[in-house]
Amino acid sequence: MTSSDAKEIAKKEFEDVFKTLAEEFVNSIKTRHFPHESIEWIRKNIYHNVPGGKMNRGLSVIDTLKILKEGKVTEEEIFKARVLGWCVEWLQAFFLVADDIMDSSITRRGNPCWYKMEGVGAIAINDSFILESGIYFFLKKYFRQDHYYIDLVDLFHEITLETELGQLLDLITAPEDKVDLNRFSMEKYKTIVLYKTAFYSFYLPVALAMHMAGIKDVAAFQQAKDILLPLGEYFQIQDDYLDCFGLPEVIGKIGTDIEDNKCSWCVNKAMTLATSEQRKILDENYGKKNSENVAAVKEIYRQLNIEGKYKEYEEESFVRINGLIDKLDESILKKEFI
Amino acid sequence: MTSSDAKEIAKKEFEDVFKTLAEEFVNSIKTRHFPHESIEWIRKNIYHNVPGGKMNRGLSVIDTLKILKEGKVTEEEIFKARVLGWCVEWLQAFFLVADDIMDSSITRRGNPCWYKMEGVGAIAINDSFILESGIYFFLKKYFRQDHYYIDLVDLFHEITLETELGQLLDLITAPEDKVDLNRFSMEKYKTIVLYKTAFYSFYLPVALAMHMAGIKDVAAFQQAKDILLPLGEYFQIQDDYLDCFGLPEVIGKIGTDIEDNKCSWCVNKAMTLATSEQRKILDENYGKKNSENVAAVKEIYRQLNIEGKYKEYEEESFVRINGLIDKLDESILKKEFI
Repeated sequence: MTSSDAKEIAKKEFEDVFKTLAEEFVNSIKTRHFPHESIEWIRKNIYHNVPGGKMNRGLSVIDTLKILKEGKVTEEEIFKARVLGWCVEWLQAFFLVADDIMDSSITRRGNPCWYKMEGVGAIAINDSFILESGIYFFLKKYFRQDHYYIDLVDLFHEITLETELGQLLDLITAPEDKVDLNRFSMEKYKTIVLYKTAFYSFYLPVALAMHMAGIKDVAAFQQAKDILLPLGEYFQIQDDYLDCFGLPEVIGKIGTDIEDNKCSWCVNKAMTLATSEQRKILDENYGKKNSENVAAVKEIYRQLNIEGKYKEYEEESFVRINGLIDKLDESILKKEFI
Repeated sequence: MTSSDAKEIAKKEFEDVFKTLAEEFVNSIKTRHFPHESIEWIRKNIYHNVPGGKMNRGLSVIDTLKILKEGKVTEEEIFKARVLGWCVEWLQAFFLVADDIMDSSITRRGNPCWYKMEGVGAIAINDSFILESGIYFFLKKYFRQDHYYIDLVDLFHEITLETELGQLLDLITAPEDKVDLNRFSMEKYKTIVLYKTAFYSFYLPVALAMHMAGIKDVAAFQQAKDILLPLGEYFQIQDDYLDCFGLPEVIGKIGTDIEDNKCSWCVNKAMTLATSEQRKILDENYGKKNSENVAAVKEIYRQLNIEGKYKEYEEESFVRINGLIDKLDESILKKEFI
């Protein structure tokens, strides 16, 4: 069996647990004697919004648990790690349903955004709340008896708030309709990435597995954070770079960060390097949905060699993050784990 | 000191705790080194949305605790009950900010709705999330060391989901733009009221105080539910009645349930009594923002004596709820408590 086969099987087994959870949640509402149409609405909400992503976040809970327990995991533990993995995916679904409304997005994962579906509209706001409630429904159902139950709940609350704060900063820094590059800065950019993405995508899945593995030492959680959050930043910067410079056939989409007035690494890097002439051109052309404006911004990126700057950043980050791993205190957290 | 003076003092002391909590929450975000404008945004969100209501829900946590502990409460316990009271008010703020967007409301408590404020718009969705996160921030800060911490958290999760389910049923039963009385029924009406309002307004404050008082017996919580939920239904039906028949100078607003296509007790009662002729008039006139249509609906209410039917319901409810209180098992929950 090749490693890619193994990955496909792991994915398939993870997906099977989704159906179990979705039906359990729906059935719990049936027992409340809710009318048929509201039950079906909730089912559609869940099936439209929770599955269908890459599931990297969810899957990494299981992978991390296996590493932490050095392969000695029972079937029941694997199942529970999958439940936690799906809780991360439900959290993401909660955020994405709402983000799509706030960003006026049209499609998500190749389908119409939930709020764009016939008859849904602003009801999607309440639907996003219900997805969030699903997390705590599953935590209670599967972990209420475990000594780390309250740690899981506290962790989800903490990460949810961090993500909301990141989303707020992003929304007020880069509103789609009011372009003002003066609001951007590399410092703000890094705060947004850290809070909006890194906490829930990189730290959360690992910290959940650590709780399951019985780790109680706060220093261990701090060490995990110290490495995983910079890693999250690195991946987001790569994402921003690829949105502008990646080939559509490779990244699977056509980037629109420039026209969407996104607070991207590229524009923040360009602003730190631009002459006042070049800055003026950025100001005049950024955030406009017009190919000529986009081309003008890209021309400034070319002049400032943003591609080359990204490669420099990439190398520097590789060295820096490896340095962090090397300095790991093995008595607290094993290196191989990262 | 008159009883109304005492009430005013209790209110004032409760309000003082709000400022403490609001500043604690804002300061916790400051320590994350967020930019000044995002801190100010969050402060405005909180001050605009959390205070300013009647605070009955929040105040009743303190009153209930005093009764349960027969007046033997320390200053610290009173303070903690006030914190729980504010958690209920923050929960309500979370719901109302979102409800106002979903209902396209214009004003709330005499001010513009939050999403209608300059520059806010759909960002209000994320702001409502932040208000919800405030609840768990305060619970953790003040109750993490208490044996009943997890019970408080579980209770808020449970009630939040119940309320979201009620809100969903209301939204799909009575959308403002698609009038169809066939969607209404007295049974659905009662489900909506129970879930959307009674759980969080009547049961939640009492159950929080019960946890603080150290009550662990699930039968006691069930008894409280058995009486408080019907009481919640009773008050909502009174509210619906007053929206249509109350004098504006008494109820402090001009009711608009008929023009807003609300799934109100009055229209559901009328539907159970109407001839097919009268039903046709209801179908043709309900949910239209026009005084002639409203008058036509009110004429049907007059013909069917909805006012008289309400008085009957009121008397019947009074007897029924008193019967429930009489049947209370005193070994579990004392009568005076209700």
